[in-house]
Amino acid sequence: MKRPTIADVARRAGVSKGAVSYALNGQPGVSEATRQRILAIATEIGFSPSSAARALSGATAEAVGMALCRPARTLGIEPFFMELISGVEAELSARSYALTLQVVADPDAEIAVYRRWWAERRVDGVLVCDLRTDDRRVPALRKLQLPAVVIGGPGYTGGLAHVWSDDAAALVETVEYLVALGHRRIARVGGLPSLLHTRTRTEAFEQVCRRLGLTDAATVSSDYTGEEGARATRRLLSSATRPTAVIYDNDVMAIAGLSVAQEMGLAVPADVSIVAWDDSPLCKLVHPPLTALGRDIPALGAYAARQLLAVIAGRPGTGVQDETARLTPRGSTAPPRTPGVP
Amino acid sequence: MKRPTIADVARRAGVSKGAVSYALNGQPGVSEATRQRILAIATEIGFSPSSAARALSGATAEAVGMALCRPARTLGIEPFFMELISGVEAELSARSYALTLQVVADPDAEIAVYRRWWAERRVDGVLVCDLRTDDRRVPALRKLQLPAVVIGGPGYTGGLAHVWSDDAAALVETVEYLVALGHRRIARVGGLPSLLHTRTRTEAFEQVCRRLGLTDAATVSSDYTGEEGARATRRLLSSATRPTAVIYDNDVMAIAGLSVAQEMGLAVPADVSIVAWDDSPLCKLVHPPLTALGRDIPALGAYAARQLLAVIAGRPGTGVQDETARLTPRGSTAPPRTPGVP
Repeated sequence: MKRPTIADVARRAGVSKGAVSYALNGQPGVSEATRQRILAIATEIGFSPSSAARALSGATAEAVGMALCRPARTLGIEPFFMELISGVEAELSARSYALTLQVVADPDAEIAVYRRWWAERRVDGVLVCDLRTDDRRVPALRKLQLPAVVIGGPGYTGGLAHVWSDDAAALVETVEYLVALGHRRIARVGGLPSLLHTRTRTEAFEQVCRRLGLTDAATVSSDYTGEEGARATRRLLSSATRPTAVIYDNDVMAIAGLSVAQEMGLAVPADVSIVAWDDSPLCKLVHPPLTALGRDIPALGAYAARQLLAVIAGRPGTGVQDETARLTPRGSTAPPRTPGVP
Repeated sequence: MKRPTIADVARRAGVSKGAVSYALNGQPGVSEATRQRILAIATEIGFSPSSAARALSGATAEAVGMALCRPARTLGIEPFFMELISGVEAELSARSYALTLQVVADPDAEIAVYRRWWAERRVDGVLVCDLRTDDRRVPALRKLQLPAVVIGGPGYTGGLAHVWSDDAAALVETVEYLVALGHRRIARVGGLPSLLHTRTRTEAFEQVCRRLGLTDAATVSSDYTGEEGARATRRLLSSATRPTAVIYDNDVMAIAGLSVAQEMGLAVPADVSIVAWDDSPLCKLVHPPLTALGRDIPALGAYAARQLLAVIAGRPGTGVQDETARLTPRGSTAPPRTPGVP
């Protein structure tokens, strides 16, 4: 594990460590030109002057970082992240580790945060969420040699430790359940297409529908907001070959879908069955309560935090499998109403 | 601002700073009895050996702490905290400050976290949520001299800086609006009675109902969960003097209340009007969408973070008023159905 030190800056600049210290602290003893050169090198290699004391101290940070790359306003509404964080936090605080949180705009900003955290020794490792299909963060983290555990996979984890769940199996189970109830026209409102787990689910959905001979199966993409969930549902329920069941890639969109069905005068579940993924207390609040695919998300967070502490302690990166989401049938799924029979 | 240093430990123990260092690092040079005494003193005054280097470095932490004293599972479902955090975070990251988060079980655990954060120089200041009617955290923070901004008040802030909102005015406006629609039997499902803002709202509700001659007005207490919101609603809607309008102290309970009304065969808003406080995207997802009292919570978080950075920079603690919650009428409120007229 290598992070930039004052010695690295000195070596690159061809000056003494003392000279670097003078330059960083704005003290006399180096020329302005040298000072500028030293600052440029420090910035380039990710050494932060303001944190010099921290980085020099050699102490561990006793902190773990999470950068969340989602619009702040959707973070608020989806229970997933707060449940995950609460699980991470419970595990960390039992070991006197702190959790440092940052909301970032995009993967490049996220990589910059990782670089700064590591250079300034603000964290000993990071938990990485929302693995993408072609994820720039993976090679960047490997290059930084910053201890990391990816929540997601398998695939695209580039040798980083990761905690994954078999989303394909959970999706197949759900479709088979709906088919057993008598559904033949099943649609899906998927999450962000750039996320790896969305792609895994979409591919599994296509495969199982092909295998079971469901020809009208289609995935509509969304951004996880209730607005897009409502829009996708209106489109699906207005089509000539209206689906009799819809699977949503989060709870918020499923609730929006339920409201749209009610607003269009369709009965849930008689006219349209609804399945939410993930499950959350929100699913039990609405009427009818939603059938949902769920995992224990706080437990997932705690599990990932334990993996990360092991990696920080020197264990090599491995992939470990977490539980598969379980389907909990509630009032929003039933056999489809036979045409002509109210 | 005073926090324990290695010199404080040395002075109390009557030894040199070098001896403290030996003792804390387990090096030879002090007797075992002296080592135990030094460790006991370090623990007593809140000086953490593992963070000695950090505390000695004299650097600021460039981090702000938030301890959230709510059950982890309810934190996940209520959008308020994640929205608040996202606003705090946006302001902090623009100034290259980190946010350190911890979920705590009770106010004593929270005070212990503050003491540790400050002793270990993990944070430069803290944001304090959920002000209580008799809040032990306030004197503890004053004693620690840890820079702090309380989100809440006025009252019980003990000279700490705070950001408050006029909840009483918002509640009065809401009751007057419902009365203008023709409601005379209005109930309220309140939040945790130990929280200051719950008491402020309960007192304001009692006063305005007395002033307007509404005799059946009553507040039922809850813990903010959907389950308790549903239970309170069932009780209210089963009573002989069923209210025609209910005000809920969060969005999650209001949505649960809507579901209970539907499950009991009552029409919203014709049989019962529903008002949620706070507003959130959830309120717009359900059918009918909920009339709600709302503030811009991310903006509140950013505002509180700016206040805290000013306090950290040395500004004395003052109280500043944030915007008052605004009422947004949606489909869940209307004049009550005239008895006998469907």
